[in-house]
Amino acid sequence: MAMNPQALPDAEFLFRLAEAADRETLPRFRQSGVVDNKRAESFDPVTEADREAERAIRALIAATYPEHAILGEEHGAVGEGPLRWVIDPIDGTRAFISGIPVWGTLIGLLVEGRARLGIMSQPFTGERFWADGTASFRQDRTGRQRNAVRPTTRLEAATVFTTSPRLFQGALLDRFLAIEAAARLTRFGTDCYAFAMLAAGQVDLVVEAGLQPYDIVALVPIIEQAGGIVTTFDGGRPENGGHIVAAATPELHAEALRLIG
Amino acid sequence: MAMNPQALPDAEFLFRLAEAADRETLPRFRQSGVVDNKRAESFDPVTEADREAERAIRALIAATYPEHAILGEEHGAVGEGPLRWVIDPIDGTRAFISGIPVWGTLIGLLVEGRARLGIMSQPFTGERFWADGTASFRQDRTGRQRNAVRPTTRLEAATVFTTSPRLFQGALLDRFLAIEAAARLTRFGTDCYAFAMLAAGQVDLVVEAGLQPYDIVALVPIIEQAGGIVTTFDGGRPENGGHIVAAATPELHAEALRLIG
Repeated sequence: MAMNPQALPDAEFLFRLAEAADRETLPRFRQSGVVDNKRAESFDPVTEADREAERAIRALIAATYPEHAILGEEHGAVGEGPLRWVIDPIDGTRAFISGIPVWGTLIGLLVEGRARLGIMSQPFTGERFWADGTASFRQDRTGRQRNAVRPTTRLEAATVFTTSPRLFQGALLDRFLAIEAAARLTRFGTDCYAFAMLAAGQVDLVVEAGLQPYDIVALVPIIEQAGGIVTTFDGGRPENGGHIVAAATPELHAEALRLIG
Repeated sequence: MAMNPQALPDAEFLFRLAEAADRETLPRFRQSGVVDNKRAESFDPVTEADREAERAIRALIAATYPEHAILGEEHGAVGEGPLRWVIDPIDGTRAFISGIPVWGTLIGLLVEGRARLGIMSQPFTGERFWADGTASFRQDRTGRQRNAVRPTTRLEAATVFTTSPRLFQGALLDRFLAIEAAARLTRFGTDCYAFAMLAAGQVDLVVEAGLQPYDIVALVPIIEQAGGIVTTFDGGRPENGGHIVAAATPELHAEALRLIG
């Protein structure tokens, strides 16, 4: 398989990548002295866990699929070709440094620019969410099951998540407030965990502004292969990040785009 | 002990109460069809888990300490006397119905109106935080340890949590925004979990508006016996709820009160 760039890795390989990351992240969760600042002028924490987890993921990919390209938050882009891994070793570093277990390791695979495989690992809760190219799954300490979005079609019946209302500024804020005013319930503070809960049928709509590719690529197949829809605010493909809306149904997605697009 | 109202229950009894609650809450977490609306005019979900957990907690208290009074969110107040249990079977019902594991079961004991014992149980992550009248502890799947707050004394170095900026309206919002502007990092969406992280030395300040007694009584000893300080915005005792500020140090608490009091 390693010599054929058209053959997709299987879920077993996604699990090996997640395990390699978990060994670096979980022992450092809630430890002190592992935070520093990436940029001096603002608070942008990046932990030793972040760097070491990405290093471990990259090493396993390079050893198994040396012909695959890799883009990671911490260590940049290497390689070219139709298959490209996209890695965020800790999505939700602010949650991580605050002890809140809604961060996750995100590892996705683009095929010709389209997100096809992905895994999100949250080792403190013992959860994984992944998509194998056909279907979306989750497992926790009680077992494994298929992900399937809820049939919610209207915003007035929807639970909406975003990491923080502070992500939205100016005209974007007005549009987010329109979503919030129309929704049944809006909650904050979840990073990648909200997208996982959308796939798991627990929430209905997730809206985020200013995402990087590594914030969303792994989550796209988990959402789409659970029956959900995820695009930019103008309805385009989400693989390059930006302002992102993910919805349980096409009807709900269309209603959200009318307010925020 | 059951016949002597001055003898305090021990941590073992707190654990029995938490176990009784966990048996009702955890199997219903992320199940569908267990949400209803307490009030027709707003979205105020209360789950079957909420009601059944409080029933189980009350039954165990009544069987073991029949002379103790009880106040619970779901089933009201019963009894009189110097010892009163205060119960929130699920603090963070909105997190619960959204699949986010930052809710908790809160069980506290007032002695002559002062919070002395308390436990917070989060069965999905396998965590408990409790105070036995002398010290504050936590345990997760990796073991048990003492809680101790961080030595953060200045807001510019502090991580601040609140459940939602939407809790703050009018003049209160201006004061909350002053806190947010001065803090190093502000995060949303955590309910009781943020107070537990304060006691565990992971965050520095928690600000919440409009709490009920059952939202805070169990957490007061967990915070205080970890070295923290928790009061109303005007510096009074927190046992009756209201607008609550909890801080890692007296210096940080004083700075927060200057901005928000």
